[in-house]
Amino acid sequence: MLRSIRTSIATVSISGTLPEKLKAIKAAGFDGVEIFENDLLYFDGTPADVRRMCADLGLEIYLFQPFRDFDGVSAERLAKNVERAKRKFELMHELGTDRILVCSNVSPDTIRDDALIVDQLGTLAKIAGEAGVIVAYEALAWGRYVNSYKHAWKLVDAVDHPNLGLALDTFHTLSIRDSVDEIASIPGERIAFVQIADAPVLAMDVLEWSRHYRCFPGQGAFDVAGFTARVLESGYKGPLSLEIFNDGFRAAPTAITAADGHRSLRYLEEQTRALMGAMGKEVPPELFNPPAPPEHIGFQFLEFAVDDSTRELLARWLGRLGFRLAGKHRSKDVALYRHGAGSIVLNAEADSFASAFFQKHGLSLCASAFHVDDAKLAFERAAAYGSQPFSGRVGPNERVVPGVQSPDGSLDYFVDEAKGGPTLWESDFILTDIDGPYEVGPLSRIDHVCLSLPADALDTWVLFFRSAFGFETEPAVLVPDPYGLVRSRAVRSRDGSVRIALNASVDRYTAVAESLSTYRGSGLNHVAFSTPDIFAAIPRLEADGVKFLRIPRNYYDDLVARFGLPDEQIDQMREHNILYDRDERGGEFFHAYTEQLDQRFFLEVIERRGGYDGYGAANAAVRLAAHAQQQQRARQAA
Amino acid sequence: MLRSIRTSIATVSISGTLPEKLKAIKAAGFDGVEIFENDLLYFDGTPADVRRMCADLGLEIYLFQPFRDFDGVSAERLAKNVERAKRKFELMHELGTDRILVCSNVSPDTIRDDALIVDQLGTLAKIAGEAGVIVAYEALAWGRYVNSYKHAWKLVDAVDHPNLGLALDTFHTLSIRDSVDEIASIPGERIAFVQIADAPVLAMDVLEWSRHYRCFPGQGAFDVAGFTARVLESGYKGPLSLEIFNDGFRAAPTAITAADGHRSLRYLEEQTRALMGAMGKEVPPELFNPPAPPEHIGFQFLEFAVDDSTRELLARWLGRLGFRLAGKHRSKDVALYRHGAGSIVLNAEADSFASAFFQKHGLSLCASAFHVDDAKLAFERAAAYGSQPFSGRVGPNERVVPGVQSPDGSLDYFVDEAKGGPTLWESDFILTDIDGPYEVGPLSRIDHVCLSLPADALDTWVLFFRSAFGFETEPAVLVPDPYGLVRSRAVRSRDGSVRIALNASVDRYTAVAESLSTYRGSGLNHVAFSTPDIFAAIPRLEADGVKFLRIPRNYYDDLVARFGLPDEQIDQMREHNILYDRDERGGEFFHAYTEQLDQRFFLEVIERRGGYDGYGAANAAVRLAAHAQQQQRARQAA
Repeated sequence: MLRSIRTSIATVSISGTLPEKLKAIKAAGFDGVEIFENDLLYFDGTPADVRRMCADLGLEIYLFQPFRDFDGVSAERLAKNVERAKRKFELMHELGTDRILVCSNVSPDTIRDDALIVDQLGTLAKIAGEAGVIVAYEALAWGRYVNSYKHAWKLVDAVDHPNLGLALDTFHTLSIRDSVDEIASIPGERIAFVQIADAPVLAMDVLEWSRHYRCFPGQGAFDVAGFTARVLESGYKGPLSLEIFNDGFRAAPTAITAADGHRSLRYLEEQTRALMGAMGKEVPPELFNPPAPPEHIGFQFLEFAVDDSTRELLARWLGRLGFRLAGKHRSKDVALYRHGAGSIVLNAEADSFASAFFQKHGLSLCASAFHVDDAKLAFERAAAYGSQPFSGRVGPNERVVPGVQSPDGSLDYFVDEAKGGPTLWESDFILTDIDGPYEVGPLSRIDHVCLSLPADALDTWVLFFRSAFGFETEPAVLVPDPYGLVRSRAVRSRDGSVRIALNASVDRYTAVAESLSTYRGSGLNHVAFSTPDIFAAIPRLEADGVKFLRIPRNYYDDLVARFGLPDEQIDQMREHNILYDRDERGGEFFHAYTEQLDQRFFLEVIERRGGYDGYGAANAAVRLAAHAQQQQRARQAA
Repeated sequence: MLRSIRTSIATVSISGTLPEKLKAIKAAGFDGVEIFENDLLYFDGTPADVRRMCADLGLEIYLFQPFRDFDGVSAERLAKNVERAKRKFELMHELGTDRILVCSNVSPDTIRDDALIVDQLGTLAKIAGEAGVIVAYEALAWGRYVNSYKHAWKLVDAVDHPNLGLALDTFHTLSIRDSVDEIASIPGERIAFVQIADAPVLAMDVLEWSRHYRCFPGQGAFDVAGFTARVLESGYKGPLSLEIFNDGFRAAPTAITAADGHRSLRYLEEQTRALMGAMGKEVPPELFNPPAPPEHIGFQFLEFAVDDSTRELLARWLGRLGFRLAGKHRSKDVALYRHGAGSIVLNAEADSFASAFFQKHGLSLCASAFHVDDAKLAFERAAAYGSQPFSGRVGPNERVVPGVQSPDGSLDYFVDEAKGGPTLWESDFILTDIDGPYEVGPLSRIDHVCLSLPADALDTWVLFFRSAFGFETEPAVLVPDPYGLVRSRAVRSRDGSVRIALNASVDRYTAVAESLSTYRGSGLNHVAFSTPDIFAAIPRLEADGVKFLRIPRNYYDDLVARFGLPDEQIDQMREHNILYDRDERGGEFFHAYTEQLDQRFFLEVIERRGGYDGYGAANAAVRLAAHAQQQQRARQAA
């Protein structure tokens, strides 16, 4: 079997006690760890106990860290630092690791003298040699004097000792927008360690940014693949090790964060492989190489877990929207509703995945099915990224639909249609009206789905869709709710045929309220259907009994001031509660929301014009306030 | 009655729908509001409806805001801006307010030409005059060209029109460290509006800082009183209006935030009064003037709500610590335990405040009593700051102890002792051994109490202690917990005899866990008792059966490397699980923690040497990890 790139993570990156961390790190698939000194200090056992725990789990200890403020000091301080280093080297022997991270000095007293620092690092390398230890010297972005990898390399190169190498860290280089090109020309064997972190772009002090806002590759905005490509080009053969300081990760469930971390490194490898190929560089064969993302064609269907009473409620609601009962499943208590290119499945099968989901979450979206060019490859890619495969009961001659679990435990199915073969509906359903006029209403297709998530799950979901699905992400936006804030980030297939908006309440108050009451872990916030003519669609749906959310009149007065739309159009929009957005290139977005069904979710009807590519985020706050007022009126009426 | 300074708040500062906000603002005692335009847009009613709501409540609408990017524009844009302004002036008539905030232009296209801007603001003033509107022109700290109040005033002064005045905002001035002295020399009648916000010092982009991290005066670090003193010196007679953009406030309960806001303005007035007096300025008589804070002498007692079984548990625990049963209450099922200067009251009285508190929170701290020089004045001050008075049943000849409610509903009593009169204990208790040897154990007094709070309550508590008690605050520190982060901020009486550390879990995960399980709203985290000799005290307490929290051995190995303490001392500390900290001036702190009682709270035994004035925050993470490991061992054993 092909050797893989070795993966590692610093213990500081995840929550829990040290034994909990190590178990989760092993379970996630990492080869080794960096032991962060505080985790050792807080652990009620000896360094030898930690060594045994790691050995029992089969985890290497690649590094012990950090050792601070060694270099650029007075002779008196140097003597103390040498003593301190010797103590730590002894501890490392007990711990069973031969590598230590030494960070450049941050003290205001740092002596800014390369010759002195070379001399002092030489002293450190010498005692490290005697102790059989390798020192990895790292330039912190906020180092007092040494603060770039180029400077650190110049010093390490000048010391020229086998027990002193360079430590590289994506954050310290990319946060200061330093160029990465020179990394490729450093001899790979002189790079003693490589740490990996991504981060969102934030206009803040670099130390605070580093200590609280790092994230896994694929969750932020740094060109981590560009950095990693140069590292591999240098000939570096060591592990890639995540070192993440993130307030959210410190509080998130240990196992989930560790699994995300491992997935993110594999994703980084795939990105790096593609980039090195595009750069015409030799691609290291051990880089992770999953099946390419499938071509997406759109949503195949959305599946709701229902019982008898909620099935009736939802079926009535779908009927008003123009959906028609199109078939019954051959072997299960499952009904298919269709309308244009939109298909909805209502699953009431007893003792099934859906019934378990219903018991836990109530009326909820229990599965999404994606129409792709090759379902088997799509599934294999998701599985390669560690997604949990799912297979339900399949009746005779029914199709086996490959599926995986989403982070919330709902399912994602992949469906393809062989040319000339029976469709999924033909295989599995007794269709009531096979050529039936499904185009009976004004809706054409599912434009996007919006999911409500707990705040600490947003990064997990983003990484899931990026890695397992190969989706692209859009920047996050922050939307004020009357009772908090919502952070929203959209993911989409490359062709835009599948779009999913991920909404997370970022405040404790709303988050707790959600987890305790209406939320119940059910992810669906709303489904948006596109229509070719919203001004025709809404009146028709209203006539069919669909109740749309009333938008405050003041909103329309402000629209006039902002966009100068024709009075007649504004009048129509006001009458039918249609919202409006316009992008910089003149693309237009018209949309309307229904009232909530069973206080769970709602529908959106949208029309995009002129290439508008967003989701009307500018109007999300109006909608949140209007839904809140609707609920207040409902409570007052009750 | 003396006229008060008029108080106001921008609707954006608190959570909720517009009607909820206005009701809470009135209930908190404000005279008026700034209507933030988005709140109007999201409100499902007309501007005239808002006018009526405010009139019915008795709230003035002092200001409508914001109007953006009017000034420093092309002639073409100016024509559009004039139209936009006229529309908003019409809306203001409907709304019933004559004042609008116009912010300096932030557009990259802003024309940097004072003469042009004076001309354009003159045009605006003219149409404002025709519409009967006053424009308050504000320099945003991130304004493209106009970004200081001095520049804005130069422009307003040059326009010299009665319908154009200057808007001042503490944030835009103090965030850029601009001097405030020149404010005093601006004619007060030319200051059209004054907005007030405080903020913590953060090294980040000023726009992000402003939009997400503002807080009420007394919660942050700005010299808001220095600013306000200059405003009043100028002769300004208008309202002081809070304008707070804070992610936490957006999610916090509306009524509590509004009440905090009003309290914070009154606190600012008291601070400003003191400052103007110290500066030798004429103090406006209408400034809020509550009774001065009392002299604190220490904790009088801590009172726990108990039932029969938890009383026994706690009494046994207190016995091991050296507390003795000192008396029974004359008319209630309340017992007094004493030890040195520490007194603990166990309240099991049926149908009382304590029994209601016990039903809600279980075994918990239901009241704290503070020994002060003048209990009546202390109570009057707290009541003047809007604290809810409390009086329980009082038996014949028993003392009426004035008390108020804390933010969590527990009680704070104020107790004084008249010279020669009966003590509180003598009045209310049948003392079992009036001269009894209470000094039987090694503890001397209550050094501090640490309370656990929900994350969004920290600012409320800080303001409560600063205003109602006149306490001082220390900077917040962030402590890593194995499962999240804890933000800790200490408050203390000026003499340091009463200290209270406020700990808030800042992450959703720990916050939810707390609110659902062990926390149950009970505030006490631990009580710290001081001892004159911790190396004598701990062995004695251990011998008496007190179980101390085991500290990891690795902690002591690191102490050696960090502080170079004598081996013998380290050995003693290791043996008795004593932690250590040293401050910059050489002051030393020795402390040990007990295991948790009933998984609720624990005790700390401390010894301060050489003027050490902190709380050993450096060791809090070790303690949190050790408690977590203790709980894991307990679960594994169970």
